[in-house]
Amino acid sequence: MAEDCYTELEQAIQVLVVNFYKYVPKHSLVRNKISKSSFRKMLQKELNHMLTDTGNRKAADKLIQNLDANHDGRISFDEYWTLIGGITSPIANLIRQQEQQTSG
Amino acid sequence: MAEDCYTELEQAIQVLVVNFYKYVPKHSLVRNKISKSSFRKMLQKELNHMLTDTGNRKAADKLIQNLDANHDGRISFDEYWTLIGGITSPIANLIRQQEQQTSG
Repeated sequence: MAEDCYTELEQAIQVLVVNFYKYVPKHSLVRNKISKSSFRKMLQKELNHMLTDTGNRKAADKLIQNLDANHDGRISFDEYWTLIGGITSPIANLIRQQEQQTSG
Repeated sequence: MAEDCYTELEQAIQVLVVNFYKYVPKHSLVRNKISKSSFRKMLQKELNHMLTDTGNRKAADKLIQNLDANHDGRISFDEYWTLIGGITSPIANLIRQQEQQTSG
C-alpha cells in the first residue's frame, strides 16, 4: 500500500509509532521497551519545540517524575503513548481556546 | 512560531490533537468531549485504511465495545488518545517484525 493513500491522521499515527522504535535498540526488540534515559533523549530531540513552552515542560517533568516511580526503568509502547498524550494537554487547551474565540 | 520549525513528531502530535477538535461541536467546546457516534464517524473517515486490516479492525471493535460500557456516551481527549493508542498496536507489531528481519 502506497504511503500517500493514508489519511493525514493515519500518517501522523505512523510517525508516532515509528518514532518509538527509533529509540528501541535493535538487540532489544523482543523486550519492546525503551530505557528511561532514551525516553529523556527522545523528549529533548523530538519534542524540543513543544517543551520550550512552560506548560508543556511542566507536564513533561511530571511525566518523568512518574517514570522514576516505575522501578523497571523501561517504557513500554503503551506507556510511551500515554506519556506523549500527557504532553499534548497544553496544545489541546490552546486549540480549544482558539476555536472558542473563532466561534464567539 | 512557523509550523515548519517543528519536528516530524511534533507535527504528527498536532495532527492528532487537531483531529480530535474537528469532531468536537463548536457549541460543545466547554464540555470538551466528542460523542460516541462522532467517534465512530471519525474512525471510518480518518482511519479507513488502517481499519481495513483485520487485526486493526478487531482492535477498533474492541475499543468501541469498551465505549459502550462507558455510560456517559462521550469521549474525552484522554479517552480519544488511549483509544487511538489501542488501534496502533498492530502497526507497532508490524514495524517490530520488520526491524527484527532487517537486524537478523
